[in-house]
Amino acid sequence: MIEKLYERLEAHYDEMVAIRRYLHQHPELSFQEYNTATYIANYYKALGIPVRERVGGNGVVAKIVGTRPGKTVALRADFDALPIQDEKDVPYKSTVPGVMHACGHDGHTATLLVLAKVLYDMKDELSGTIVLIHQHAEEYAPGGAIAMIEDGCLDGVDAIFGTHLWATEPTGTIQYRTGPIMAAADRFEITIQGAGGHGAQPHKTKDAIVVAAQLVLALQQIVSRRVNPLQPAVVSIGSFLADNAFNVIADTAKLVGTVRTFDETVRDEIAQEIGKITNGICLAADCSYEYTYTKGYPPVVNHVEETNFIVDIAKQLPEVTVVEETEPHMGGEDFAYYLQNVKGSFFFTGAKAADITNPYPHHHPKFDFDEKAMLIAAKLLGTAALHYLKK
Amino acid sequence: MIEKLYERLEAHYDEMVAIRRYLHQHPELSFQEYNTATYIANYYKALGIPVRERVGGNGVVAKIVGTRPGKTVALRADFDALPIQDEKDVPYKSTVPGVMHACGHDGHTATLLVLAKVLYDMKDELSGTIVLIHQHAEEYAPGGAIAMIEDGCLDGVDAIFGTHLWATEPTGTIQYRTGPIMAAADRFEITIQGAGGHGAQPHKTKDAIVVAAQLVLALQQIVSRRVNPLQPAVVSIGSFLADNAFNVIADTAKLVGTVRTFDETVRDEIAQEIGKITNGICLAADCSYEYTYTKGYPPVVNHVEETNFIVDIAKQLPEVTVVEETEPHMGGEDFAYYLQNVKGSFFFTGAKAADITNPYPHHHPKFDFDEKAMLIAAKLLGTAALHYLKK
Amino acid sequence: MIEKLYERLEAHYDEMVAIRRYLHQHPELSFQEYNTATYIANYYKALGIPVRERVGGNGVVAKIVGTRPGKTVALRADFDALPIQDEKDVPYKSTVPGVMHACGHDGHTATLLVLAKVLYDMKDELSGTIVLIHQHAEEYAPGGAIAMIEDGCLDGVDAIFGTHLWATEPTGTIQYRTGPIMAAADRFEITIQGAGGHGAQPHKTKDAIVVAAQLVLALQQIVSRRVNPLQPAVVSIGSFLADNAFNVIADTAKLVGTVRTFDETVRDEIAQEIGKITNGICLAADCSYEYTYTKGYPPVVNHVEETNFIVDIAKQLPEVTVVEETEPHMGGEDFAYYLQNVKGSFFFTGAKAADITNPYPHHHPKFDFDEKAMLIAAKLLGTAALHYLKK
Amino acid sequence: MIEKLYERLEAHYDEMVAIRRYLHQHPELSFQEYNTATYIANYYKALGIPVRERVGGNGVVAKIVGTRPGKTVALRADFDALPIQDEKDVPYKSTVPGVMHACGHDGHTATLLVLAKVLYDMKDELSGTIVLIHQHAEEYAPGGAIAMIEDGCLDGVDAIFGTHLWATEPTGTIQYRTGPIMAAADRFEITIQGAGGHGAQPHKTKDAIVVAAQLVLALQQIVSRRVNPLQPAVVSIGSFLADNAFNVIADTAKLVGTVRTFDETVRDEIAQEIGKITNGICLAADCSYEYTYTKGYPPVVNHVEETNFIVDIAKQLPEVTVVEETEPHMGGEDFAYYLQNVKGSFFFTGAKAADITNPYPHHHPKFDFDEKAMLIAAKLLGTAALHYLKK
Repeated sequence: MIEKLYERLEAHYDEMVAIRRYLHQHPELSFQEYNTATYIANYYKALGIPVRERVGGNGVVAKIVGTRPGKTVALRADFDALPIQDEKDVPYKSTVPGVMHACGHDGHTATLLVLAKVLYDMKDELSGTIVLIHQHAEEYAPGGAIAMIEDGCLDGVDAIFGTHLWATEPTGTIQYRTGPIMAAADRFEITIQGAGGHGAQPHKTKDAIVVAAQLVLALQQIVSRRVNPLQPAVVSIGSFLADNAFNVIADTAKLVGTVRTFDETVRDEIAQEIGKITNGICLAADCSYEYTYTKGYPPVVNHVEETNFIVDIAKQLPEVTVVEETEPHMGGEDFAYYLQNVKGSFFFTGAKAADITNPYPHHHPKFDFDEKAMLIAAKLLGTAALHYLKK
Repeated sequence: MIEKLYERLEAHYDEMVAIRRYLHQHPELSFQEYNTATYIANYYKALGIPVRERVGGNGVVAKIVGTRPGKTVALRADFDALPIQDEKDVPYKSTVPGVMHACGHDGHTATLLVLAKVLYDMKDELSGTIVLIHQHAEEYAPGGAIAMIEDGCLDGVDAIFGTHLWATEPTGTIQYRTGPIMAAADRFEITIQGAGGHGAQPHKTKDAIVVAAQLVLALQQIVSRRVNPLQPAVVSIGSFLADNAFNVIADTAKLVGTVRTFDETVRDEIAQEIGKITNGICLAADCSYEYTYTKGYPPVVNHVEETNFIVDIAKQLPEVTVVEETEPHMGGEDFAYYLQNVKGSFFFTGAKAADITNPYPHHHPKFDFDEKAMLIAAKLLGTAALHYLKK
Repeated sequence: MIEKLYERLEAHYDEMVAIRRYLHQHPELSFQEYNTATYIANYYKALGIPVRERVGGNGVVAKIVGTRPGKTVALRADFDALPIQDEKDVPYKSTVPGVMHACGHDGHTATLLVLAKVLYDMKDELSGTIVLIHQHAEEYAPGGAIAMIEDGCLDGVDAIFGTHLWATEPTGTIQYRTGPIMAAADRFEITIQGAGGHGAQPHKTKDAIVVAAQLVLALQQIVSRRVNPLQPAVVSIGSFLADNAFNVIADTAKLVGTVRTFDETVRDEIAQEIGKITNGICLAADCSYEYTYTKGYPPVVNHVEETNFIVDIAKQLPEVTVVEETEPHMGGEDFAYYLQNVKGSFFFTGAKAADITNPYPHHHPKFDFDEKAMLIAAKLLGTAALHYLKK
Repeated sequence: MIEKLYERLEAHYDEMVAIRRYLHQHPELSFQEYNTATYIANYYKALGIPVRERVGGNGVVAKIVGTRPGKTVALRADFDALPIQDEKDVPYKSTVPGVMHACGHDGHTATLLVLAKVLYDMKDELSGTIVLIHQHAEEYAPGGAIAMIEDGCLDGVDAIFGTHLWATEPTGTIQYRTGPIMAAADRFEITIQGAGGHGAQPHKTKDAIVVAAQLVLALQQIVSRRVNPLQPAVVSIGSFLADNAFNVIADTAKLVGTVRTFDETVRDEIAQEIGKITNGICLAADCSYEYTYTKGYPPVVNHVEETNFIVDIAKQLPEVTVVEETEPHMGGEDFAYYLQNVKGSFFFTGAKAADITNPYPHHHPKFDFDEKAMLIAAKLLGTAALHYLKK
């Protein structure tokens, strides 16, 4: 059965490329992916695969139900693009000014569509159900996943798998990780309210810059003293704003920063510590403050068994030459939400052609990836689905 | 002779008011006081008093030479206005939009012109020379004083006296101080050059915000640890700028601040300490920096004997009810340069009418002063001149 | 009358020296000056001057009542010694091991005793009363002054004068200052209570050293930001103690420091600010703390009129060659308490002989002073008393 | 063969316990383990196993050479005790006051001796060589390993295995980790040399406490900003010493701390960063300093293949119920040096009896362990040796 899968996927590789390039030319921004959603739904309709549209927004969910009972396994691909001007010089360049598939979601979608077509052809041999989750809005918090889950996309699902084409790792490499593989990426803002005045009369003021400077230093202690050193965590302040004349003492100072963690407890502790430290430092200086902490996606935490399951499959794929544990990535992914609800694993599929030495990173205006990697991803996800159904 | 002086000044009080009001209606900004300079010069010319124009710019210097030899004493009045919209509701309101005599320099000028007229009348009784320095551009560094001095306005002068009408002290009060009476007001800028990057990867960056925050705290030690506690000094940072996205680590951070001192040695030490501290903190963080320190006016440092001389005279003026030592003012005055060259004293002449309880401060759009104070200032400066000639 | 005073003081100079040397050989520590007190009282008794003993402890108060009514003026001399081993090689060296008149209080006492004798001789010419306050325990807080005042030594007194022989200024110099002349010298302790633990597991601890370090830096802001720059103030931490093994995180850290001020309001504000800052910083770190602030003597604040009065007298004393304003001293003096109750002035009488170039400072084991200065002090205080009675 | 091994080990379990208890009663401190070394050597001699004594100090190395050629595998046990007073109430309690086997090295030794005896019985079936490394001085840097290696104990060795009985994990648990399993534990000292003085005159000093406080805060940035957040690292300051009178400004301040890392590059970077930061902060304050960084043991970094090899064996041992990855331990072990020279793996053998709920931690005066765990350790190490020889 796996051999049949591989043969047919290979036979449809050209279609995969064609779909990907079509999508690449017609990118749509997060939460605005109307045409892409219709395109996906139509593909399923044309094949006769039952499909549900407008799932949690622009989400599309198709189902391939086997002839015999069995497990239900979900595969997910996201399909939104980014507000970036495509600067590549290729025939399939984006036709939409300022919008571009600069993260490979076009490839994820093409991979899943063609894989679905092939699996549907094999539906008579299947025991169980394969759910194809086409998710909108991965790039923009709060993301599409959470709404699609609320709208039932995981109902009855036993496990979910997903991958990200990764243009800076060679095609043929699969990167996995049990436990946290992508970080929670949060944002916080602190506005110190002091009391401004003349630069020559500090005693009549509450100098917001000095207070904020103290705060910046005190916040360093969260990572250096308060978080378990075995738990990766980052607290960075990207913006310090207190813009006044040279001879004035600042009334307010505003800090904006980010927190990255791989553990929900650590994440919550840090959010709380920032508040506690801010409160104390402001109290010491008789200042007031406003503090807001906005959670981005939670960490993507892979399940051990499902990750080992993927690793075992990957090791047997002939095109896969390297299967390696990756360091956790500091970026976020709303695949995290699926894994909070069902078991599963998210992995990276290398997509750098052998002749590329300095690939453009994701989100770069010249980003592109090796389309061959789609075939590997399709085989891996397809095998995972078929094997899992029988578990 | 003093009595004659007083009588005549009183007799010309109306002219003084008229001149002041004319000037008030026709204010000119620093370094652009062409018409005011001409007005002043014409006044002297009309009286037959020898006058030199375009001294160090728009400066005007007149001389009353007595019939007998003696000392040479200078009196100084400044005549520039400020870029402030006059919001008073009086007949003599500024006629120039956005420009206003909001610091009393119109009064200083009227006082000195009429005093000169009266003294010129008495020239046959004078031994020595009285130099009348009408200075442009006091409000805007580098100021007019330094150029006028270079252009010879103090040549041959033995001592100089000047006053500032002070609208927040009652008319009848004279405030003096030996030693420093007004501060040096300087400006500095520090730009920290770190290495920016992604907020999730601090180890690949040099976080300019953290370095600048350390610097802000370290600079507190200049006043708390490095300056003699008996020497007033202020180091304030008015602006802290590092404006980035929340998930970015700052490449650069810019601090802009002011230093206030009353002693040239302390001033130079602080300028040097800021540099030394910046250098060390940046070295610790492997960052580079740019540091510029721009001196404003030096402190106004009154000479002891000349100040006591003024105090003694003030105590004998019937209109003067209070002669008191003032705390040093934190603002700057380029009268400082005259006192670096010749002996002398600068003092404050109260100019708040008895019925005013909440006077508008200097530089306020509704600033005004009690014109009666001009007469007191004229009497005091005139007496000082006459007495000093005989020394 | 003043001439008679001077002649007689000069005539008794030898006695002054003899008394001083006797006292120098028989020093007694603060609050233990029993024999010295008796010696003083006996001197008055022998002369027939009414004397009260055990005033507020070992204090002795004598009164010379003139034949006519008038003002009441007090002169004060302190008489305790220090726990220092006398290392001088002079015939009048201390005979008490480890105890020494190393601050000139022997001289103050000799001066006042002989001055009293001379004034008593002139009592028929006096209108008013001269109160001679011999104060014990100046060197050791809470000092003798406060208890003597409570015991009535200032009752009926209109003004008080006192001087300190000053061995590092030349004989012939009188140093005065209106307003604050000596500082309030206070002590504070802060103990941070964190939670100790293993150096490798900071997240299980509350690192008291890091908290105390933050506090040290934050306390710098009291002087740099919160106190009027025109008000001299010092906050110094002399001791930072957290003594543990290298691989341990500190449970507690203790800071001990001093505060120097010249103004009671600033003093109280600083005591409060330290508390506020400590509270905030500890709250930010979830630590508890103990904070104690122990006041030493208040600042010695001279009254303006009485100080000018002394200056005028000093300028007319032939032996006095220099009368100059001194910078405030950072040391403490419980003369401060008298000036909180009645008007008066405290000044320094230079006591360095012309041939001494590197005088030993006060409290040095080889401290000594020029005994001629006692005569100057006696004349100045005596003149002040006589003139004041007539006011 | 493995079955034979297990049977014989079980048969000799009583001897294992007897040896362990004998050693427990006769502990010797690191570098002073003369009798223990002789005891070990005699055991081998009595069996006729070739043994080399005084290897790199008190080390003992025995060799079991199989009859056929093959790999060479080393097993290591350490045998020094600790300066702790045994407070247990058991018959085999330490007989040496103040010295105690409080870390289980007695158990390690008994395990290896009896295992060697059993393996020696099987020598005719062996292909290859088993090296039995009895290491002295693990508890006290620089440790015995480094000297034993220099003295040839690893010559010809292909791989090494070792275990630590771990009294806080249940008997039946084996804990492994690929890569870093135990930290580098280093020590550093920084002495700031400022310039002391009177607490009231900060401007005449260089306040070492303020500088050291700045340094404490700046050092927080090493972990928060300069080390890869995915690399665990700790920088802790255990001691801050500046002990002076309250009214003095500190001349010097001394910081002593520890650094924990799992990666040699990170370790060296931190050592360098501390130096760089200290240098910059001191330069900013015009202070000098002394900085010493003393390396303890390097991190114990397990090799991947050898660790998986141990895991596979452990999973097949009937007594082993849990085989789990452990978080890295923050403590140090000089087993690290062996792994820098040859491949191998170090793992933890749970040694908490089922009925113990609150085990005393290692280095506790009441420390003890479940002797049954020795049998598990012997089986695991023995199997590892036999399997490895055949590789």
